[in-house]
Amino acid sequence: MISVIILGAGNVANHLFKAFKKSDQATVKQWYNRSLNTIKQFSNQTEITDNLAQIKDADLYILAVSDDAVKELSAKLPFANRLVVHTSGSVNIHDIDKKHRRGVLYPLQTFSKNSDMDFTNVPICIEAIESEDYHLLKKIAVSLGSPTKKVNSDQRQVLHLAAVFVNNFTNQLYRLGHEISESEAADFDLLKPLILETAKKIEHLSPYMAQTGPAKRNDKTTLKKHLKLLEDKPHHKTVYELLTKSIQLTHGGKKL
Amino acid sequence: MISVIILGAGNVANHLFKAFKKSDQATVKQWYNRSLNTIKQFSNQTEITDNLAQIKDADLYILAVSDDAVKELSAKLPFANRLVVHTSGSVNIHDIDKKHRRGVLYPLQTFSKNSDMDFTNVPICIEAIESEDYHLLKKIAVSLGSPTKKVNSDQRQVLHLAAVFVNNFTNQLYRLGHEISESEAADFDLLKPLILETAKKIEHLSPYMAQTGPAKRNDKTTLKKHLKLLEDKPHHKTVYELLTKSIQLTHGGKKL
Repeated sequence: MISVIILGAGNVANHLFKAFKKSDQATVKQWYNRSLNTIKQFSNQTEITDNLAQIKDADLYILAVSDDAVKELSAKLPFANRLVVHTSGSVNIHDIDKKHRRGVLYPLQTFSKNSDMDFTNVPICIEAIESEDYHLLKKIAVSLGSPTKKVNSDQRQVLHLAAVFVNNFTNQLYRLGHEISESEAADFDLLKPLILETAKKIEHLSPYMAQTGPAKRNDKTTLKKHLKLLEDKPHHKTVYELLTKSIQLTHGGKKL
Repeated sequence: MISVIILGAGNVANHLFKAFKKSDQATVKQWYNRSLNTIKQFSNQTEITDNLAQIKDADLYILAVSDDAVKELSAKLPFANRLVVHTSGSVNIHDIDKKHRRGVLYPLQTFSKNSDMDFTNVPICIEAIESEDYHLLKKIAVSLGSPTKKVNSDQRQVLHLAAVFVNNFTNQLYRLGHEISESEAADFDLLKPLILETAKKIEHLSPYMAQTGPAKRNDKTTLKKHLKLLEDKPHHKTVYELLTKSIQLTHGGKKL
């Protein structure tokens, strides 16, 4: 059994802890957090501590902490030459103190606080300096049920950036759509099947091939109607104009 | 059995035809298109014609044609006082010639040419001038398996506009994410589970509540890193800046 120690108590730490409980290859030997309060509910499931001096020997230490904390916490760990990884999309592997064997386990997914996550839907991007560490990390990720991929720090950074586009920005478009439908007391729920279908469509079609709509067709009548509807919503109008232009740049239509 | 005649041969017409084949309450009696070529493959399943003078008597005529064609085609129909509906998100019900009983069946979904659509995932927005026509349209939509909703022309217009945000614009964000990940030869497929989860999340959470990420947190270190990564992609950078601002306007954080 591979022994793992989790450090941190945010969303990723919590979801990893739950996922490890189902793994038959790896187990959480200990859970560290600077405040015991947030993890004490798990004290009957694993050993918990808020004292770095009491951290045990293990095969893997996972720093599931905020980006800013990786460097400092890794330096503070009172041991060397053990495998220490972080879980961040944008922190370089070399930010982990060089006294350790270093790696990254970046779960490319959005985690909600209260709902369980099926790790078959959580691709884990793996990076390591030593090849034997890479293989251990891969074995662990696979034991959680995750698809895995070898991803270097440059690739991880652009994936994290692309994730902001397809997750945070997309969700903001849902929000703007919500506001627009509410302006006439139209039911936003009517849009939910469309939202799901739009996401599902690119499972088998590239976003380029999946595009439809008035911007791509350069359907001037509809574009004009829409801009008129947005006359008293200048921010929504700006977003409409920029993304219409973006679609037309991609598909080579005329620019607005 | 309710008799239906479809006019037009685009995506919506094709998907409606397939859906009616499964209905036990309504049947397609005849299919009109100005060119027989595109529908002749269905001639063993229903009567087809390219001659408006040969259009038969039926309970419902569905104009599944382009927005621009609704007005003219409805005027050309060689009969009056029968129920004629269009399927457009942005055309007013009064654009249908007033010699007819008028209505709208707007399927709020994105249709692909080659894949079958389960109509339980196609909400149909219904509008009619006469209440008995509304009830007939509702009965027909329900027989296709669709959820239905009474939606007036103003509401339908904003739903159509909101659909552009959550479908076309969202898909363009997928495209921009694809381009960003490809710039470092990172695998776009890794983002697909995140894309699906982002869409699924708002089934039970409002987009407002579902928001996460560096823009909402006003995480300046990450925002700066991302803008630096986009230095040589001015268009992507403009979209990044506008949607970051949009999230911060919504969530009351500091403006960029």
